Amino acid sequence: MSLVGALLFGQSGGPSSVINASACGVFETASNIECITAVYGASHGIKGILNEQLYDISKEDSQEIALLRNTPSSALGSVRYKLKNYQQDSTDYEKILQVFTKYNIRYFLYNGGNDSMDTCNKISKFLAERNYACQIIGVPKTIDNDLFGTDHCPGYGSAAKYIATTCMEIALDAKVYGSGTATVIEIMGRNAGWLTAASYVASSVGLGPDLIYLPERAFDVEKFLIDCEKVYAQKGNVIVAISEGIKDKDGVYITEYATKNASKDSFNHVQLGGVGNYLGALLKVRLNAKTRPIEFSLMQRCAAHIASKTDVDEAYGAGKEAVISAIEGKTDIMIGIKRLNKEGYSTKFIDIPLVDVANYEKKMPDAYICGDNYVSPAFLDYVLPLIEGQNPVLYINGVPRFANLKKILVKK
Amino acid sequence: MSLVGALLFGQSGGPSSVINASACGVFETASNIECITAVYGASHGIKGILNEQLYDISKEDSQEIALLRNTPSSALGSVRYKLKNYQQDSTDYEKILQVFTKYNIRYFLYNGGNDSMDTCNKISKFLAERNYACQIIGVPKTIDNDLFGTDHCPGYGSAAKYIATTCMEIALDAKVYGSGTATVIEIMGRNAGWLTAASYVASSVGLGPDLIYLPERAFDVEKFLIDCEKVYAQKGNVIVAISEGIKDKDGVYITEYATKNASKDSFNHVQLGGVGNYLGALLKVRLNAKTRPIEFSLMQRCAAHIASKTDVDEAYGAGKEAVISAIEGKTDIMIGIKRLNKEGYSTKFIDIPLVDVANYEKKMPDAYICGDNYVSPAFLDYVLPLIEGQNPVLYINGVPRFANLKKILVKK
Repeated sequence: MSLVGALLFGQSGGPSSVINASACGVFETASNIECITAVYGASHGIKGILNEQLYDISKEDSQEIALLRNTPSSALGSVRYKLKNYQQDSTDYEKILQVFTKYNIRYFLYNGGNDSMDTCNKISKFLAERNYACQIIGVPKTIDNDLFGTDHCPGYGSAAKYIATTCMEIALDAKVYGSGTATVIEIMGRNAGWLTAASYVASSVGLGPDLIYLPERAFDVEKFLIDCEKVYAQKGNVIVAISEGIKDKDGVYITEYATKNASKDSFNHVQLGGVGNYLGALLKVRLNAKTRPIEFSLMQRCAAHIASKTDVDEAYGAGKEAVISAIEGKTDIMIGIKRLNKEGYSTKFIDIPLVDVANYEKKMPDAYICGDNYVSPAFLDYVLPLIEGQNPVLYINGVPRFANLKKILVKK
Repeated sequence: MSLVGALLFGQSGGPSSVINASACGVFETASNIECITAVYGASHGIKGILNEQLYDISKEDSQEIALLRNTPSSALGSVRYKLKNYQQDSTDYEKILQVFTKYNIRYFLYNGGNDSMDTCNKISKFLAERNYACQIIGVPKTIDNDLFGTDHCPGYGSAAKYIATTCMEIALDAKVYGSGTATVIEIMGRNAGWLTAASYVASSVGLGPDLIYLPERAFDVEKFLIDCEKVYAQKGNVIVAISEGIKDKDGVYITEYATKNASKDSFNHVQLGGVGNYLGALLKVRLNAKTRPIEFSLMQRCAAHIASKTDVDEAYGAGKEAVISAIEGKTDIMIGIKRLNKEGYSTKFIDIPLVDVANYEKKMPDAYICGDNYVSPAFLDYVLPLIEGQNPVLYINGVPRFANLKKILVKK
């Protein structure tokens, strides 16, 4: 029998175009289930739980909830906050237990990447030790596509579609004068090359980078310059895609060559950015060509106007599946996506133990990488279904109409 | 009676999302007119005439010509080449006359901005002096929207739509952690603020820059930092849009503060870029906040996937109108757009003498500017109709299917 109580949903980590589509799936599904007595949204994820700032989702207009499907970023607010191990310091955990008890939260769904799954896993273990019954389900999210156990992650397809399309448009623009230009496109991805590899979709139709550098291969600056010289000598132009996370053979981020004292975020990740500018400057000198570094910056993760319909539908589906799984009594799992080996593209949702997901990064397999500076055609079979379809967007006055939630806090 | 002979069309200057829509309008119209004996496209504009590299448009598939409507950049190739005054050096002009005579070119249509209209005007005068009958019509094009005599320019609406939409998406992303971030968005526009002002569309729906700096107002770095401090103190975040062309009270580009020896292009324009990085770095120190400079770079002028339908239709219409005007015996004019003072948005094409357009830049009027760091609501009446409508795009395998011309050269 299902637990009777409230459902709490939170959003965590870096934004994507489809995080809110998962929220839409959670809210629309949960609001029709009898044993769920209330639906809450945590303001800024785990921080909203610790600060007891919970939104009452029943107060929202259903039309605005529906618009979440097309609205980028995290409508409830996101957070980057790392819980300590409760064996060392249980302060946060005691507070979480207190809030869960007070609001009778029996279903906790958390949307995020591997750090967030680690958070879920820790809370789950602590609550179990304290005999507090609560179904805890992770909803996968990351544009990086580096989560363990799932064929791919909601968020990736839309970012990949943006990257592929934008590379095509840039290729047409950058070559408009015939010759004499070098373009260095910097794409996100700390340790995995999935996003940068999406630029290969553009290359496969003749409008993409000539060279693609992934963090899975050691990067050598001099070799890079020689690679570029060769292409430039042959074609008169060169377009390069590089992952922000490229590292040399000793594992040093190329970015650190430029910025010696790289700052770090609260997860001890080095703050990246600027490697395109750095390499662009070196390339300009080497080629004596007009060189333009381009950073896809936030746009690659928030360009909901060109979201993949497949991705949005799967993000929505993962939210819905998380609610259903929780009601069925599942806990301590993340919803994963398994690709079925049938004709065409089809998938089913699977359960992945949280402990397997937490803090593990899935890299690009060798089969998808060509040498040390390109992507292999096999990658197309993987990625093309994920960017398929255009998610419909409502436009008002020429710009998208995004969801506008009231975000009414539950009285403490 | 109309002249009987070939029509030559060329593309010039920086790319936009709708240059090829004008080409589509020219080609589809010209191919059905009896007195036009052949339709040629100049490879890389004026350079293709001087080098006698003309494409035979009759060899192209009509489906590919139709796809030009949705294909960014310049399918025939563009050029930045400034003709000397023929009184000083007529070499280029003699070559042009020779090529025009050889191919019996009686209609010359040239698509570009004010530099290109200057080129048209010079050629027109020279051919008239030599008694070579040729109808010369300029087709307007520039994302900068700075052409004289026309309400707006094809290319602007699509760039404005990209800027407005992307600012909205970025605002949702940049504020996802609640507070503690500063975002500096750098937008194109050498001397006119039209493009940067488009970010105000996002502000008008609560998802845009807090401060907008246009080249029409003198920029003071210290004042900028204080402006940002005030917003940051009040809201916990600040988003700023700045034109790449902002200058101090003495007319010095702020960019030059950072790069002392700014290079210049062949039109003697200072090569811009990087002012966002420069101000972002200053702001980071002042606010002690996570500061992200974002440059819209080439994307703002080539993101055809989010082109304005109004803009694409008008660009097509301007190309069509240019052919019709030429056949009617008009010459030495640029096709302009006049907004009619009726209910709703309607326009008609008008003739603007080339000599009036050449080398004059139309700035933002005072009525559209608010103080020294914002845009006024009156601007919305101007800009909203221009970004209205979503131009339909054909997608194959999840990415746009852009036109792929054969580009078969006419035998010399």
